[in-house]
Amino acid sequence: MITVGVLGARGRVGSEVCRGVEAAADMELVAAVDVGDDLDSLVTSGARAVVDFTHPDAVMDNLEFCIDHGIHAVVGTTGFDDARLDTLRRWLADAPSVGVLIAPNFSIGAILMMRFAAAAAPYYESVEVVELHHPTKADAPSGTARRTAELIAAARREAGVDAMPDATSTGLDGARGADVDGVRVHSVRVRGLVAHQEVLLGGPGETLTIRHDSLDRASFVPGVLTGVREIAARPGLTVGLEHVLGFI
Amino acid sequence: MITVGVLGARGRVGSEVCRGVEAAADMELVAAVDVGDDLDSLVTSGARAVVDFTHPDAVMDNLEFCIDHGIHAVVGTTGFDDARLDTLRRWLADAPSVGVLIAPNFSIGAILMMRFAAAAAPYYESVEVVELHHPTKADAPSGTARRTAELIAAARREAGVDAMPDATSTGLDGARGADVDGVRVHSVRVRGLVAHQEVLLGGPGETLTIRHDSLDRASFVPGVLTGVREIAARPGLTVGLEHVLGFI
Amino acid sequence: MITVGVLGARGRVGSEVCRGVEAAADMELVAAVDVGDDLDSLVTSGARAVVDFTHPDAVMDNLEFCIDHGIHAVVGTTGFDDARLDTLRRWLADAPSVGVLIAPNFSIGAILMMRFAAAAAPYYESVEVVELHHPTKADAPSGTARRTAELIAAARREAGVDAMPDATSTGLDGARGADVDGVRVHSVRVRGLVAHQEVLLGGPGETLTIRHDSLDRASFVPGVLTGVREIAARPGLTVGLEHVLGFI
Amino acid sequence: MITVGVLGARGRVGSEVCRGVEAAADMELVAAVDVGDDLDSLVTSGARAVVDFTHPDAVMDNLEFCIDHGIHAVVGTTGFDDARLDTLRRWLADAPSVGVLIAPNFSIGAILMMRFAAAAAPYYESVEVVELHHPTKADAPSGTARRTAELIAAARREAGVDAMPDATSTGLDGARGADVDGVRVHSVRVRGLVAHQEVLLGGPGETLTIRHDSLDRASFVPGVLTGVREIAARPGLTVGLEHVLGFI
Repeated sequence: MITVGVLGARGRVGSEVCRGVEAAADMELVAAVDVGDDLDSLVTSGARAVVDFTHPDAVMDNLEFCIDHGIHAVVGTTGFDDARLDTLRRWLADAPSVGVLIAPNFSIGAILMMRFAAAAAPYYESVEVVELHHPTKADAPSGTARRTAELIAAARREAGVDAMPDATSTGLDGARGADVDGVRVHSVRVRGLVAHQEVLLGGPGETLTIRHDSLDRASFVPGVLTGVREIAARPGLTVGLEHVLGFI
Repeated sequence: MITVGVLGARGRVGSEVCRGVEAAADMELVAAVDVGDDLDSLVTSGARAVVDFTHPDAVMDNLEFCIDHGIHAVVGTTGFDDARLDTLRRWLADAPSVGVLIAPNFSIGAILMMRFAAAAAPYYESVEVVELHHPTKADAPSGTARRTAELIAAARREAGVDAMPDATSTGLDGARGADVDGVRVHSVRVRGLVAHQEVLLGGPGETLTIRHDSLDRASFVPGVLTGVREIAARPGLTVGLEHVLGFI
Repeated sequence: MITVGVLGARGRVGSEVCRGVEAAADMELVAAVDVGDDLDSLVTSGARAVVDFTHPDAVMDNLEFCIDHGIHAVVGTTGFDDARLDTLRRWLADAPSVGVLIAPNFSIGAILMMRFAAAAAPYYESVEVVELHHPTKADAPSGTARRTAELIAAARREAGVDAMPDATSTGLDGARGADVDGVRVHSVRVRGLVAHQEVLLGGPGETLTIRHDSLDRASFVPGVLTGVREIAARPGLTVGLEHVLGFI
Repeated sequence: MITVGVLGARGRVGSEVCRGVEAAADMELVAAVDVGDDLDSLVTSGARAVVDFTHPDAVMDNLEFCIDHGIHAVVGTTGFDDARLDTLRRWLADAPSVGVLIAPNFSIGAILMMRFAAAAAPYYESVEVVELHHPTKADAPSGTARRTAELIAAARREAGVDAMPDATSTGLDGARGADVDGVRVHSVRVRGLVAHQEVLLGGPGETLTIRHDSLDRASFVPGVLTGVREIAARPGLTVGLEHVLGFI
């Protein structure tokens, strides 16, 4: 049984994490801490790992406390720059058994989609990305779609694959989408959609499609729980959930 | 049993039509005519209807012969302008029992997709079109996608529907596709694809998707056979297969 | 401006309807009534139409009041049997200008999917239904999938279409899905899904797919608003939202 | 430049391979051999690797010749049992620089689909397989779908993942598909389809879908060419294309 403390436990995200920990058969929620609560309860409750979804202003103090007390940490709070990561590495150097995982994205599906797309990309002549979101989204393409296209382009460059075929010689502006590192990205905006992405890969006579549909905020909880399960075995600093997913 | 003659019977398309007629339980292929053959065989064989996939240079003579002899015609040959259509109407005025169907597209699926998209469009806040083809296609968007977008836009104008929501304020050129009459159209080009189109419609909490996949030239045969079955009941000139599909 | 009263206004569904009416440019919410409130406010507020999402025990009294006072009604409350419908018809015979719409399903998307599927079914050799839901659903197939299959089968019978081809001669029990009136229906149950259905139609060389994704309860609101807009022009009793959707 | 000989060069598959080798920028077709031709041309032409799509009766003689003459081989011919594989290993022991790749399936897309599905399966509560084929297929589910389900089940067993949730308590026989090692498999048969498969994985709030569409026999050529490129670096016997795809 992994004993878990949650920091930011009364927040929108933290409360989902609490529910997820309580529902997990191999975990026990031993401390639910939020602004104004004492961090000491993490120690007295015997938390082996902590999940932090708090605020950039609070997270470094939280992590210093955890590292000092030998508690592993899984962190979804934003605001980590190189200076902060360096500070964390220094602290962790003095606590060689402690693991800290910082991840900007805990959606296992989004990470698998990107990894699979990059792994498959060198084997196909053509790869395009279609992302589909609700029409109140401000940016097009989405950050995930850009990142996916960059990973695809990098994988193809490394493999020495040719540019993609495209005989388009006549048409309307924008029809072929945006160009991200040579990968075409199309942004669909339709009421009723939430957050979806499709990567289409094709060669002679066949296509492979990898699609991720994210319908609810709860989708990040399994990624957090996976992080909690794996972090004890990974002392030091890990950045990115993909590194604790076993298939890589 | 409908007795059918095929003009252009040795051509790539005509030969598929011959096979389709022979396979149909309610039809009999009584004449297979091509360049150099005598049209009289249509009469001696007792053809009640003729299918013409020949050449713009030959088709008017063929149709004059059919109309003169009281034979209905289903025509996929191209090259009909207003002058030719007027000539046909004049000939048909003297043969009030004969029906002629001219259609630029015999794919029932493409026609249903366009009709359904236009019928549904006024009920949804957002409608976008994604067409997907092989990368040797020269035009983007496809003609069918443009036509679909125009029909959607017309249906929404007629119903007095508002413009679609789109909060995009930052991004990359082309990400949001081409603008056809206010409808966004995205063109995907991937090796291995043939000819595919998807219309996405969405309102609060739900989306409706209509997708047509055309994988083989044989896809036009059912539309031709439907034309043959229906033409006897539609004297005069009919332009467009949609008019003989019963649901409209 | 259509003046609208909502009965059951504090319920989960009714409160969504209130929000929808307030957001509609052509409607004004003039009365929000719930248990314990006086129906007279519908009259004093000048409501032209009423939306009723209340309870089988209350709805008949509500409708008698509305019909007596010349107020149209759009009703999503359940529990209507033939006896109740006959009573409504009798009441409406005395109020020839009043319209009442009773609908078991206000999802426009679900209705369009069923209509399009039935309209297209006679033109294709094969039609199958795949419905996909969350794994806590008790019945398989879903009621909507069964109803869709029945409508498809009826449309094909009426058109005199042959049975569908299926050469399956070896395999595992259940692989080919359930048989509903000769139409194969497949039920997928996957965590993360909400309520989705796909109808696949295919003929030589092409397929047509109609898919409905319902992601949020709010999806019924546009159907209710359409009912409110159309009901004044349809005196008497109308059962089923499909009859007020213009394309039929 | 890799010099390539093709055995079975006039067969339906071999002739596609010849075209693929000729089109590849890094390969040269130096020998096209079929029944009645002399194998010596493989030696005189300087073939570094051979592709064999011949017949179970011929393939062992072909491979003995290749191994004796230091030529690598990529083999799609069927009929390899343990005895034959043991014979090959014995021959290869005496030719330590020669590589032989035997693969039952050269579709890179099918292999990637299976690998990705198995890699992702332990991270999701639910996984189901939907395979879609033309209605003249005799077996349901397809062999690929069964194999995919077995790989998914094995990956979940190894990871100690719980059984999938399924609250179905009422319904029609077959609705929930076939049970392959605890994984539900659904077989759709629709005219116009070729060979398609979809793996749906889902957890709270998200789904991941991996889909493979095979539309044309040419789809195996890239897998064969990948085998030719990699085989020189893999002396000894390799069974299964997945082992030469770099991402594993």
